[in-house]
Amino acid sequence: MAEALSIDEFLAGRRLTVESALMRHLDGLPRSPERLRAAMSHALLGGGKRLRPACVLIGAAAVGGAEPSALPAACAVEMIHTYSLIHDDLPCMDDDDLRRGRPTVHRAFDEATAVLAGDALLTLSFQIVAEELPGDVSSKVASSLARACGPAGMVGGQMADLLAEGQPLDADEILSICSRKTAALFSAAFEIGALCGQADAEQAALLRRIGENCGIAFQIVDDLLDIQATSEQLGKTAGKDRARGKATLPELIGPEQAFERARGLTDQALDLSARLPSAAASGLIEGLIRSMLRRSH
Amino acid sequence: MAEALSIDEFLAGRRLTVESALMRHLDGLPRSPERLRAAMSHALLGGGKRLRPACVLIGAAAVGGAEPSALPAACAVEMIHTYSLIHDDLPCMDDDDLRRGRPTVHRAFDEATAVLAGDALLTLSFQIVAEELPGDVSSKVASSLARACGPAGMVGGQMADLLAEGQPLDADEILSICSRKTAALFSAAFEIGALCGQADAEQAALLRRIGENCGIAFQIVDDLLDIQATSEQLGKTAGKDRARGKATLPELIGPEQAFERARGLTDQALDLSARLPSAAASGLIEGLIRSMLRRSH
Repeated sequence: MAEALSIDEFLAGRRLTVESALMRHLDGLPRSPERLRAAMSHALLGGGKRLRPACVLIGAAAVGGAEPSALPAACAVEMIHTYSLIHDDLPCMDDDDLRRGRPTVHRAFDEATAVLAGDALLTLSFQIVAEELPGDVSSKVASSLARACGPAGMVGGQMADLLAEGQPLDADEILSICSRKTAALFSAAFEIGALCGQADAEQAALLRRIGENCGIAFQIVDDLLDIQATSEQLGKTAGKDRARGKATLPELIGPEQAFERARGLTDQALDLSARLPSAAASGLIEGLIRSMLRRSH
Repeated sequence: MAEALSIDEFLAGRRLTVESALMRHLDGLPRSPERLRAAMSHALLGGGKRLRPACVLIGAAAVGGAEPSALPAACAVEMIHTYSLIHDDLPCMDDDDLRRGRPTVHRAFDEATAVLAGDALLTLSFQIVAEELPGDVSSKVASSLARACGPAGMVGGQMADLLAEGQPLDADEILSICSRKTAALFSAAFEIGALCGQADAEQAALLRRIGENCGIAFQIVDDLLDIQATSEQLGKTAGKDRARGKATLPELIGPEQAFERARGLTDQALDLSARLPSAAASGLIEGLIRSMLRRSH
């Protein structure tokens, strides 16, 4: 229980740090139309566990980097995640009315505003990386982030996910979608943190692999919750995957086996994290993984 | 006529250079779903005058930079422009069926694919800037590009434009929207070219101002054409502004006065360009301006 408490404290503390930094970034947009800022703020400051920015901060700590050096990149990663939620929730995509317990952006505002608020957050995240990181780190971070969320990463994963609706997929095909749609950003988050902490290539690659394993496990657990939890518990519509004919690992091989698969992936992540120079960071990653697996059990 | 011919030759030649570079970038996306690549390619390689990338190349030449050093940034700017067209054409925004004489992406594919193809092109443009420019130039270019197309730039301008539909605007309000929606990317294009050519701050600022003037003039001419030309001539739906209750300068002060306003702006740009160290680049800018003004007369 000691690790569990400590990761909860870490996440709660970092959530406040990240949210106040996100708020400062939105306050720094004086020339933007008020409605656009309000929509960006509705999505960005409307709750959320801030897991991905926490992964950035853990990535930096894992290689001995100072936390403030990674805070801009943590904000950029959360903006990318938020933009992807706004666009994925649109009527033409997953058509969702509820997110983090509140109306989605296109419900609270309108579709055009939702498209533009997503575009604005994506663009702003690259601006922050360009302007608030040292020159030698900035372009490496921008490259990692763009690859993770571009056509071969998150956007490609969302396209593949939409194309697969109603199709029978095997486990490898499902995991390939999870890898791009979800794990790409987690793995970039850990890697980017490491880059901000001036990691060498080997350490950055290690954190990348930890993030990849955690990210796929996270998506499997998310798919389990979609079956097992209520909309109220989730803060978003439950049972959507089955309703839309989406193939998920829990549907394909059953909840227990899917959970074991997630545990196998996180076990690998734990083995990898034991190689990190910082024992404190390994402890945080272990706590993060336990907390992730606990969500569905 | 000598300048006019020479700019036409320049644009035709650079169009080929830029298009073959854009094609190479799309070919380098092996892990992307085929439908996403097809939609990106439909939009990116479906014609277009390639004016904005030409401005990047002229910006580099104006400060004595080698053209190949600015080609990645020229592609990035064209990708940003193309993404903005895809999203602006969506049914929830300007709801357009025709672009560059062909069906818009959401008509040729579907809305979800159009949203994702736009997101992918925006992301890819920042990847190119991060990976294909020297470290010291890369973050400056990314910053200029993000500011130009983010919430205080192009995206904010599109939001303001949508909010203004059916509203009476005065000339300053109309020009403020033109400045963000259109001129921000033109002015970044010239500035980014200058940055790729290792310009000093003064030269970069000069090219930025030239681009701002040309960009506003370009939008005024575009609004004139929306009134005067047919859809076939434009390759996109004509008469849309009036149909949607959009206030434009030609509607507000009449076509002749609006044209004079555009000419006043380009005259300022010509005065500024006379200060550039490269006479050849000044000549190209003059040719570009004449060719732009000729479109509507």
